[in-house]
Amino acid sequence: MRPVFFLSDFGLEDPYVGVVKAVLGQKAPGTKVVDLAHALPPQDLRRAAYALFEAVPYLPEESVVLAVVDPGVGTGRRAIAAWGKRFYVGPDNGLFTLAWLLDPPQRAFLLERVAPPGPQGIGPLPGWRPGEATFHGRDRFAPAAAHLALGLPPEALGPEIPPQDLVRLSLRLSPGPEGEILTFDRFGNAITTLLEAPLGGVVAVAGREVPIRRTFGEVGVGEAVAYRGSAGLLEIALNQGNAREALGLKEGLPVRLKTKSEAPPETPGR
Amino acid sequence: MRPVFFLSDFGLEDPYVGVVKAVLGQKAPGTKVVDLAHALPPQDLRRAAYALFEAVPYLPEESVVLAVVDPGVGTGRRAIAAWGKRFYVGPDNGLFTLAWLLDPPQRAFLLERVAPPGPQGIGPLPGWRPGEATFHGRDRFAPAAAHLALGLPPEALGPEIPPQDLVRLSLRLSPGPEGEILTFDRFGNAITTLLEAPLGGVVAVAGREVPIRRTFGEVGVGEAVAYRGSAGLLEIALNQGNAREALGLKEGLPVRLKTKSEAPPETPGR
Amino acid sequence: MRPVFFLSDFGLEDPYVGVVKAVLGQKAPGTKVVDLAHALPPQDLRRAAYALFEAVPYLPEESVVLAVVDPGVGTGRRAIAAWGKRFYVGPDNGLFTLAWLLDPPQRAFLLERVAPPGPQGIGPLPGWRPGEATFHGRDRFAPAAAHLALGLPPEALGPEIPPQDLVRLSLRLSPGPEGEILTFDRFGNAITTLLEAPLGGVVAVAGREVPIRRTFGEVGVGEAVAYRGSAGLLEIALNQGNAREALGLKEGLPVRLKTKSEAPPETPGR
Repeated sequence: MRPVFFLSDFGLEDPYVGVVKAVLGQKAPGTKVVDLAHALPPQDLRRAAYALFEAVPYLPEESVVLAVVDPGVGTGRRAIAAWGKRFYVGPDNGLFTLAWLLDPPQRAFLLERVAPPGPQGIGPLPGWRPGEATFHGRDRFAPAAAHLALGLPPEALGPEIPPQDLVRLSLRLSPGPEGEILTFDRFGNAITTLLEAPLGGVVAVAGREVPIRRTFGEVGVGEAVAYRGSAGLLEIALNQGNAREALGLKEGLPVRLKTKSEAPPETPGR
Repeated sequence: MRPVFFLSDFGLEDPYVGVVKAVLGQKAPGTKVVDLAHALPPQDLRRAAYALFEAVPYLPEESVVLAVVDPGVGTGRRAIAAWGKRFYVGPDNGLFTLAWLLDPPQRAFLLERVAPPGPQGIGPLPGWRPGEATFHGRDRFAPAAAHLALGLPPEALGPEIPPQDLVRLSLRLSPGPEGEILTFDRFGNAITTLLEAPLGGVVAVAGREVPIRRTFGEVGVGEAVAYRGSAGLLEIALNQGNAREALGLKEGLPVRLKTKSEAPPETPGR
Repeated sequence: MRPVFFLSDFGLEDPYVGVVKAVLGQKAPGTKVVDLAHALPPQDLRRAAYALFEAVPYLPEESVVLAVVDPGVGTGRRAIAAWGKRFYVGPDNGLFTLAWLLDPPQRAFLLERVAPPGPQGIGPLPGWRPGEATFHGRDRFAPAAAHLALGLPPEALGPEIPPQDLVRLSLRLSPGPEGEILTFDRFGNAITTLLEAPLGGVVAVAGREVPIRRTFGEVGVGEAVAYRGSAGLLEIALNQGNAREALGLKEGLPVRLKTKSEAPPETPGR
């Protein structure tokens, strides 16, 4: 039985996460379900793509990654399962763009033959029936993830499509020098698209130059600093503060790496 | 061993959810506990009632539903266990009103003979003892849920009462045409008490008429739309927006269904 | 296999909680992981210390408590494992101060020989490698917790240190009469450092005197009341309201117990 790692923007103010788990339990009893994140900002595909990029290297091969951040539910967007070293189930909206840089899909299927779970063990409430069009996490993705967790053949889920036809976000990770702010984490740290964080250099952002160090502990409390973050991307933070707010940073803002020689001399004792 | 589905307004800023799970683990080792929702708005019984209504059709028969949203803890409100196809444990404050429309209780018991869990494995802190009056999730509901998860007789929990004496909220689900806004979800979608969502009709709310479609993908981004939501109730949303804020909606606001013939003609291209 | 109880300020807007669980699963397959709290206010050591104090009496002996609230990650602060009746893994920053009043550490080790988990099952993204300095939850604490969950010898983690050298916060729990506001919970209730809550007395705070009762149900809706909270500490609440906001309370604010005789007579019918 393959474990399922589950990420969504459902939050914990609603029972949607629990309902999806109940369906997974009903369709694939005994499956281990591990929550990745459920309070992602609603409908924020960049944040979700980053979250999956951060997590994927630590998820076991053959595991199932169920991800539902789905601003297009109820539109024509496709529902898909794809796999490289792991199985990915979710909307075909670019959510997996960054994860797939580390674990590129070899095959992909449209979820067109997935049966929704039936309500069970309920008495008659005249006129009641569940809605069918808006909760694909419950009705389509969870049953598909359960199917794959059981090791059943993906071909049964729907027609195969070429992996290169899967939707990707227009995001590019690169060593630089040009990049942009990809997203933020809960602490207000800015995560960039830069794969390099040359020690002693600076990163230019929002009209200021931020020194690059090994960790944010190497600057004073409240000071700005850049470093290679846990996911391997250059991040910009305030030591024990919120860089997003304090520096007025925004998603998509350009960033530029400058090496040591380009950078102005540091003021001693800063 | 019966699984326990656990819903509360404890949030994840405090350890209360974890403490309840520790007690479940202590009293019924090996029980599977599935979180339904824990960040419900504090003390919001309508929201909790809706969450349980949404989840119950997908929870296995014989499972235990432990729900603690309890503005009256520490007052005279009763603590109860009741069951129909599933076991319900929580305060007797109307929390299960809507769930019980789908799974009506056949028998009910007051939780008057439940022993709280003892602190264990701790050294002496002079003067310390746990409080007893304010955390019924830990001291009363979790032990009762563990008792039922183990398949032990409910009679041991306290005296039996007639199911019709259980407290209900004054909420009525109906096909319409008159209804009200029941509550909201995290995305700001308004959930109404209406069991019908006639395609092509409109729903009147807050001085405007919102068209009823199969899904919110059938209107433009930012437009208002009504549809049968995942729980089977008519919902009012903004496609990729927040209807609660944008339309100034409030809990309890009246809504009224109008069929196609009553509705004004749609403006083409809207 | 020992269960792991996991507390952090990682939130559920990011995948960090899920990544830590994936690492626990990789290093100690089959370990049971129970979430204690993950939406603790970022970097709030007092709140985290309180949360652990509240939970510890209900956690089984021999379990592993993994706690990561770590404003000093990336600085010289030490990483430690310590145990009394339970095993504690986290930063050496005072996080366990209050828990250790109930379960004092007998032995302690520095986490200096812990190998980070390797990324696995990923293809080549040119230039990519994970960051190493900022995610000790993943790279140091989770592997150490897995090691202890497996029952392996703590000596392998690093050098032993005397338990009295572990960092503690300067917080003192006492029967009173002088104390302070320790922290708040999600409902806005103020938790104090006072171990006593004498019925019929009052607690002076922020220029007002709040009556001490058995539970907040004993005053009217919206009224202030003090009582022995679930963790055994005197709390100040508003019945069905938010005391923090309504009374303008702050962390560290002094509180003072007055016994019945010192207290002014109650106004009947208040």
